[in-house]
Amino acid sequence: MLRRTITGVKPTGTPHVGNYIGAIKPALELAEDEQRETFYFIADLHALNSIHDGAQLKQLTYEVAATWLALGLDPETSMFYRQSDVKELVHLQWILSSVTSKGLMNRAHAYKAKMDDNLAQGKTEDDGVNMGLFNYPIMMAADILLFQSDEVPVGKDNIQHIEMARDIAGSFNHFYGNTFKLPDFIVAEETAVIPGLDGRKMSKSYGNTIPLFEEEKKLNKLVNRIITDSAAPDAPKNTEGSTLFSLFQSFATDKETEQMRQAFTQGISYGEIKKELFSVMNRKLSEPRKKYQNLMENKAKIEQLLSEGAEKVRPIAKAKLAEVHKKVGLH
Amino acid sequence: MLRRTITGVKPTGTPHVGNYIGAIKPALELAEDEQRETFYFIADLHALNSIHDGAQLKQLTYEVAATWLALGLDPETSMFYRQSDVKELVHLQWILSSVTSKGLMNRAHAYKAKMDDNLAQGKTEDDGVNMGLFNYPIMMAADILLFQSDEVPVGKDNIQHIEMARDIAGSFNHFYGNTFKLPDFIVAEETAVIPGLDGRKMSKSYGNTIPLFEEEKKLNKLVNRIITDSAAPDAPKNTEGSTLFSLFQSFATDKETEQMRQAFTQGISYGEIKKELFSVMNRKLSEPRKKYQNLMENKAKIEQLLSEGAEKVRPIAKAKLAEVHKKVGLH
Repeated sequence: MLRRTITGVKPTGTPHVGNYIGAIKPALELAEDEQRETFYFIADLHALNSIHDGAQLKQLTYEVAATWLALGLDPETSMFYRQSDVKELVHLQWILSSVTSKGLMNRAHAYKAKMDDNLAQGKTEDDGVNMGLFNYPIMMAADILLFQSDEVPVGKDNIQHIEMARDIAGSFNHFYGNTFKLPDFIVAEETAVIPGLDGRKMSKSYGNTIPLFEEEKKLNKLVNRIITDSAAPDAPKNTEGSTLFSLFQSFATDKETEQMRQAFTQGISYGEIKKELFSVMNRKLSEPRKKYQNLMENKAKIEQLLSEGAEKVRPIAKAKLAEVHKKVGLH
Repeated sequence: MLRRTITGVKPTGTPHVGNYIGAIKPALELAEDEQRETFYFIADLHALNSIHDGAQLKQLTYEVAATWLALGLDPETSMFYRQSDVKELVHLQWILSSVTSKGLMNRAHAYKAKMDDNLAQGKTEDDGVNMGLFNYPIMMAADILLFQSDEVPVGKDNIQHIEMARDIAGSFNHFYGNTFKLPDFIVAEETAVIPGLDGRKMSKSYGNTIPLFEEEKKLNKLVNRIITDSAAPDAPKNTEGSTLFSLFQSFATDKETEQMRQAFTQGISYGEIKKELFSVMNRKLSEPRKKYQNLMENKAKIEQLLSEGAEKVRPIAKAKLAEVHKKVGLH
């Protein structure tokens, strides 16, 4: 039996190099495992909680879909769909909410963090919390459980969501008999934090990102803007804590990385390193960039692929929801 | 322009005389107003919160549907559908949750009452609260807003739900431009509390109800079981606070009520009153009882009527949800 692995991608920002190294690359590697059957979905219903601008959500949905496709997601061998196209998901979310205790939601890390933040700022604890955020773990449980997923790859800070999906599945099974498989989580190997232009973690909120598919010249300029110290060109340099080395390592072969490490020790100018970094990045990204641009110029093609993906998963969704409806007494 | 009036009926118990007098009768009277276009729906998605038994929910859904049809709901002139058959409702509920502040839900009377109850009993405040209950006002907003309802008839203790639907509609309109009509509430004329067999309010939870469509002999027996005091047969009796008079009044003509009031003053035995009460109840209920029994023996007919009802409202639901999807950036 293939293990069914499911990954949701929230379209809340233009994909950047940090997303690629930390999330997209490891997620796509799972599709190469023949023991696995991979489901990827664009989590537009989750994105609604933070993006209240229709045109922006639409644009980001296309960008994220095109990014994953350009980087090698093969819609022939993986399931690739948009969450809102599978109406059964929201329906299941509502049904699950009736077996989900509010106490469980109160303990969600993301919600608690927001509360603590509010209190620290002297605000009321639920300030700025919308019900989409509070209900997030229930929708996520529906995403996972409707497809009887075996496992969900997550970062360490997302393990709790999978535990909650298990709790919710267990509660449903308790009331209505065995219906949902309890999913496992897989925590990806600890990847190093990907630094951005200013050396801090690459993040949209710091404004220090390198967009993945920036055109060649702009990519070169951005690489040149990466902040370095004022060490002399021929001075030996430390690889540890070096943004340049960290990024280089993520795009270069092992052999190239080793050579670069030696060059650091022996002394190599930042200008030279940046040239090499741009070269390996561009080597990896130039093909996907073309694919991405083609897709973004042909959104009907993206729509078509997403629709076909939804068509492919819909029979699974329909069958499971019908089983659930029967058990709970809906039509 | 017809005013669109919407009423949801939660299938959480076998309909009894108290439901008829307090809710069904006034709701059905609205359908006779030519200025109104009436929507009635079986709120099975709301019932999920309290009924975790599929067979029971299914049975109650049929009982409630058959009751309203038997009592005169005309599916030709009113819209009559089952909530779970209109998939667009749950979808809208999710979208609305992303513009609904959690603070608003914290203030819901039903939730607060449950919390206070818990605390009074030394339990934690969210003990036994499920997310279906906590999300209830959002689903109710979706029920109302999807159909651009003008007004919702409610009991006094439900006014807050309509105010919340208005708040949620306002919040959506604020983010995405004018989309939803703000519904009004209509509070039905203060109807007296309908007493049950033991004189307390007729309520499933007190076990003192008279089921609406009990067969004739059983109805007669139940009426005879209504608790009275030990006044002598020919002693004058007080109509105020009299369960028998209160029920009589609900089924009799004005003239009959006047005559009974006089009989009370002059002295009439409880046995005689009960005979009269049974007579007016049975006169009103015997035809509906037959219709009800016919429908309950022909559930396929109920299914057909509900399906046809859903077909009739679906184009309205689809058009509105498409408009919403476009605005929020979903497909």
